[in-house]
Amino acid sequence: MSVLVVGSVALDSVETPFGKAEEVLGGSANMFASAACHFAPVHMVGVIGTDYPMEKLEPLKAKGVDMSGVEVAEGESFRWRARYRHDLNSAETLETRLGVFSHFRPKIPAALAGSPFVFLGNIDPRLQLDVLKQVTNPRLVACDTMNFWIESRRPDLIELLNHVDLITINDAEARQLTEESNLVRAARWIMDRGPKHVVIKKGEHGAFLFTGTSVFFAPGYPLESVFDPTGAGDSFAGGFIGWLASTGDLSEENMRRAVVYGSAMGSFAVEKFSNYRTIELTRPEIEARVREFHRLVAFEAPLPA
Amino acid sequence: MSVLVVGSVALDSVETPFGKAEEVLGGSANMFASAACHFAPVHMVGVIGTDYPMEKLEPLKAKGVDMSGVEVAEGESFRWRARYRHDLNSAETLETRLGVFSHFRPKIPAALAGSPFVFLGNIDPRLQLDVLKQVTNPRLVACDTMNFWIESRRPDLIELLNHVDLITINDAEARQLTEESNLVRAARWIMDRGPKHVVIKKGEHGAFLFTGTSVFFAPGYPLESVFDPTGAGDSFAGGFIGWLASTGDLSEENMRRAVVYGSAMGSFAVEKFSNYRTIELTRPEIEARVREFHRLVAFEAPLPA
Repeated sequence: MSVLVVGSVALDSVETPFGKAEEVLGGSANMFASAACHFAPVHMVGVIGTDYPMEKLEPLKAKGVDMSGVEVAEGESFRWRARYRHDLNSAETLETRLGVFSHFRPKIPAALAGSPFVFLGNIDPRLQLDVLKQVTNPRLVACDTMNFWIESRRPDLIELLNHVDLITINDAEARQLTEESNLVRAARWIMDRGPKHVVIKKGEHGAFLFTGTSVFFAPGYPLESVFDPTGAGDSFAGGFIGWLASTGDLSEENMRRAVVYGSAMGSFAVEKFSNYRTIELTRPEIEARVREFHRLVAFEAPLPA
Repeated sequence: MSVLVVGSVALDSVETPFGKAEEVLGGSANMFASAACHFAPVHMVGVIGTDYPMEKLEPLKAKGVDMSGVEVAEGESFRWRARYRHDLNSAETLETRLGVFSHFRPKIPAALAGSPFVFLGNIDPRLQLDVLKQVTNPRLVACDTMNFWIESRRPDLIELLNHVDLITINDAEARQLTEESNLVRAARWIMDRGPKHVVIKKGEHGAFLFTGTSVFFAPGYPLESVFDPTGAGDSFAGGFIGWLASTGDLSEENMRRAVVYGSAMGSFAVEKFSNYRTIELTRPEIEARVREFHRLVAFEAPLPA
C-alpha cells in the first residue's frame, strides 16, 4: 500500500565536528521519503521555490517517489543552517529562512486523496488538520510535531491528536506537551486525547511504542561513529510507516517490527549527511541491520511459573 | 557459588520530591548485598563505626548475608546526605562524612579468600587492588568505580583494570575515564586495558554489555514512578553478579541474562528508599519482571537471507 507524506522540502547547510555540507537535501518530507521508499510507494506533498536545485531530487525520483504533489512557488526555497557541537545531541540553529514554505497550504491532488497511509510531517498543526480534510478514509494517519508548535499552537495540536491514529514525538517534546516528566504517564496523557499508539523517540537512547495495553522498546543502535544526526527522526518515521504500508498489517506484533525498521533507518541516517546513506541502501543491508537489532536485545527469559 | 562484596556500609539521608528518609541503610556493599542475596550466598566486607544502628542490618542477615567480614571500628559510621530535584537524574550531595570509612583497609577473612565471585564496590582503587592480593583464584572479579577515583587515582584505576574480568561503570564515568564520547569506543578502550567484559550503565536509558565480539543491551524498565534512584547501580551489580554466581555459568548467553537480572533489580531498587524494595522481593516477583523485560523488547526478526 502507498504512503502519502506532507512536510517540508528544504535545503540544509550543516556543520558537525566531522565535516560540513552546503545546501543538501533536507526537510521532513525528503528525509521521510528517503527511508520509506525502500518499503512502499511514496507520494510527497510539499512546496519548493523556483530556485530549488531540481537535480537534488533525482535520487528520490529514481527510487519511485512521486513528486506530483510538490508545488513550485515563486520565491526562495526553505533553507536551514545549523551546527552540532562535539556531543551531537542538539543542533544549534544558525539560520532559518522559510521562503515559500511560510505560505504553504498543502493541496492534496485528487489522485492521492485515497492514500491508505498518511504521515503528517512536522508542520503547523492547522495545516496538518487541513490535510486530514482532504483525505478520505485512510487506514492509518500518523503525525509528528515539534517544540515550536507545542508552544505556539497548543489548542490546534490537541485538536489534531483527536484525529490521528499515531504520533511520533521525541522525549523532550512529549514532556513539554504533557507536562509529565515520566514518559509512561506522558504517553498515557497523549493516548487519552486520541492516538491509539504513541511512539516516543529518545534519539541515541532508543524508542518506545506505547499502546493501550503494552509497551515495546527498541534501543538505539550502538554506532561507533555518528556523523550527522539531522533527519534521524524523519528517517525513523519513514522506516516505521513504510514497513506498515508494505505489509498492511497493523497488529501489535507488526507494529513492534515496524519500530525496529524505523530504528534501523534512523541509525543509517546518521552515518552520513542528508539522505546520502538512507537513499543508497539495499534491502539486504536493511534486513541485516534489523537482525542485528534482534541479536542486540536477545536473551532467554525464565519460563513462566 | 558464593559472592564476596567489598564496599561501603553507610547511613544515607535522602530527600526526593516524593519524600525523605533519615539514616537509612546505604553504601555500595549494603545495596549490592540486598540484591545479590536473592540469588547466591553473599559475604560482606566493610567497616562501620561503633554508632551504627545494628538493627538496620537485620533484614540482610535474615536473608543469609554473612557480615563476619564487617569490622566495627571506634568512631562514626560513613554518612551521606543528598537531595534529588524533580528530574531525579543526579543527586546533589549535601554532606559526606566518611568517619571510620576514611581509614578503611579491607581485611578479607581467611575463610573468604577462596570466594569464587568477587565484587569490588566503589572504593579507592588502591584498596580494590589490595583486596585482590588477599583472594586466591576467583572465577570472576568485577569492579565498580566513580568520577572521584577517575580523577584522583587514575594510574591505580588503570592498574586495577588489568586485574579484573569485568567492570560496571556508568556512561558519564566511561566517557571521563576513556576520553571517548562514543560508548562503543569507550568500551573498547577499557577492554584494551584488561577486562574481557564491560557493562556501561545508562540509568533510566538501560545498560550495555560489551564483550570482545558482541554487544548486548537491556533497556531501563519503563516505571510509572521512580521514587529514589539511590543505589540503583549497586542493585544492578548485585542482581548481575548474584545471577552469575547462582548459575556458575559465564557463557555469553548467560551473561546477557545476568544483565537483565541486574536491570530488574535496579528497576526495583528505585521504587522505594534505601533497600526497602529489593530486600523484600520474592523470587517469583523477580522472575516476573525479567519476563516483562523479555516482552518489552520482543519482536520477530526477518529470516537470514
